[in-house]
Amino acid sequence: MPTVDILLPGYAIDTDQGYPAFCGVFLIRGRAGTGERRNILVDAAHVGRRPFLWEALASHGLAAPDIDTVVLTHAHWDHVQNIDLFPHATLLIHAAERRYAHTPHANDWATPSWTGLLLEQLPIREVRDGHEVIPGVHILALPGHSPGSVGVVVETDAGRSVITGDALHFAQVARTRRNPLVFWDVEQAVRSIDRVVDLADVIYPGHDRPFRLTSRREIEYVEPFCLTVTGLRPDARGLTFADRSEQGTEWIMPGIGGQPALYEKNAQEIARRISRVPRIAPPAPA
Amino acid sequence: MPTVDILLPGYAIDTDQGYPAFCGVFLIRGRAGTGERRNILVDAAHVGRRPFLWEALASHGLAAPDIDTVVLTHAHWDHVQNIDLFPHATLLIHAAERRYAHTPHANDWATPSWTGLLLEQLPIREVRDGHEVIPGVHILALPGHSPGSVGVVVETDAGRSVITGDALHFAQVARTRRNPLVFWDVEQAVRSIDRVVDLADVIYPGHDRPFRLTSRREIEYVEPFCLTVTGLRPDARGLTFADRSEQGTEWIMPGIGGQPALYEKNAQEIARRISRVPRIAPPAPA
Repeated sequence: MPTVDILLPGYAIDTDQGYPAFCGVFLIRGRAGTGERRNILVDAAHVGRRPFLWEALASHGLAAPDIDTVVLTHAHWDHVQNIDLFPHATLLIHAAERRYAHTPHANDWATPSWTGLLLEQLPIREVRDGHEVIPGVHILALPGHSPGSVGVVVETDAGRSVITGDALHFAQVARTRRNPLVFWDVEQAVRSIDRVVDLADVIYPGHDRPFRLTSRREIEYVEPFCLTVTGLRPDARGLTFADRSEQGTEWIMPGIGGQPALYEKNAQEIARRISRVPRIAPPAPA
Repeated sequence: MPTVDILLPGYAIDTDQGYPAFCGVFLIRGRAGTGERRNILVDAAHVGRRPFLWEALASHGLAAPDIDTVVLTHAHWDHVQNIDLFPHATLLIHAAERRYAHTPHANDWATPSWTGLLLEQLPIREVRDGHEVIPGVHILALPGHSPGSVGVVVETDAGRSVITGDALHFAQVARTRRNPLVFWDVEQAVRSIDRVVDLADVIYPGHDRPFRLTSRREIEYVEPFCLTVTGLRPDARGLTFADRSEQGTEWIMPGIGGQPALYEKNAQEIARRISRVPRIAPPAPA
């Protein structure tokens, strides 16, 4: 059976000056249908976690070239930036997400206009709901947060794990059933949360620790919290710790309604952009 | 006389799971030789600060198209990622830094291989030491941290301000005279720190508050510290606050010695890469 390990834990920490945006990065190990071993990375984090990702791979006995597949749950900046560390890997991303990344909405602050250039640095395989990555590991379409958000379902010895990306950022979302950050479609986002909760034994959220929902619908984390902060003293003058709830509830991107039409209209321009990106990462060996 | 305002403050906060990497972003306002008003942005921060940058501009009565010039102190990820918000601006970057960004060293975790693609999204004007941006504002070459790190010297009514980027990350560096993070050349980095300290009345570091050095060589901050953190309680189990000094001293990139030769050797390849980047940001109006 395939296994899931946390390479970098996800954290739900924010500030009023910017987002640290530490997403979970996961390692799935298993065997292809042919029996070959496969090392699959799910999400790659942003550049500020790059040295930590190297270390985490090493602590699992791996180096970057050992990763043969990188699955992106979606194209937001904090999930994709380190993919160029893995030029030997094939990138799996939902077809809708790839296209969107080449002409993101002007209000979409999480997908800069250059995201498409970055993604095309790896050979891409577009995936859709149900795609089998290896036996026991498949793609789960979870649109709403972004057009082509996906999860990864892993059938492990301990039950069914679902890596959700930001279709389900925080454990609390499994209770509220509302996505606090929607860039594409609010109703799709709700259905995606329901889909995860219905399927999963253990949920691996985008920015929180893995957890189970108990029969009483309570959150039972399966990993401890662990973090060391430097350069900040908890009693520093001018520093405030606030509850998230004080910062308001959910954010829905302005202009969200017009997106599908815009995206349809730009189809040709998107195809043209994809064809023009120069590949600057070293090519994968034959 | 030109003025300097902080749009986004720099913070010296790190963790053992990743770098929040909140650099200072500055607004210089002044007049060109022709008398026209100019709005100059120095550094652009990473994507996790994009909504905060929009807000900060608005609070200064500006929108993104009002920025006519973006100066990058260097090409590290946390300083450059939001430049695509300013397609009407000209990008000023040191010639050496631009070239380096197209073939960064494999150990340079702060300059991903796709950095060059990102930079070329704006029209670039290469600058060198002494370049006058507008009267009273000029470029100061500060190599060492990276090959083409620069500062910006601003002659204000209150004296000479120097925006340093990461040639001088933290106020403490003005005392130790050692750069804690060197990707290019240790000795050049020391000379760059000396140059800043000799010139400046007020120093605007890359990741700290602006300060003066007193005649006793003590640090006198000229701005208060202010930060609100959400999603983290100071008494959370598993959370530790540590002193920076416990984390060791300075990091010098492995392989640093061979870089100038490598860079020379790759000159043609770099020129080829620069010529191939498709511009995907909307063009500036005529």
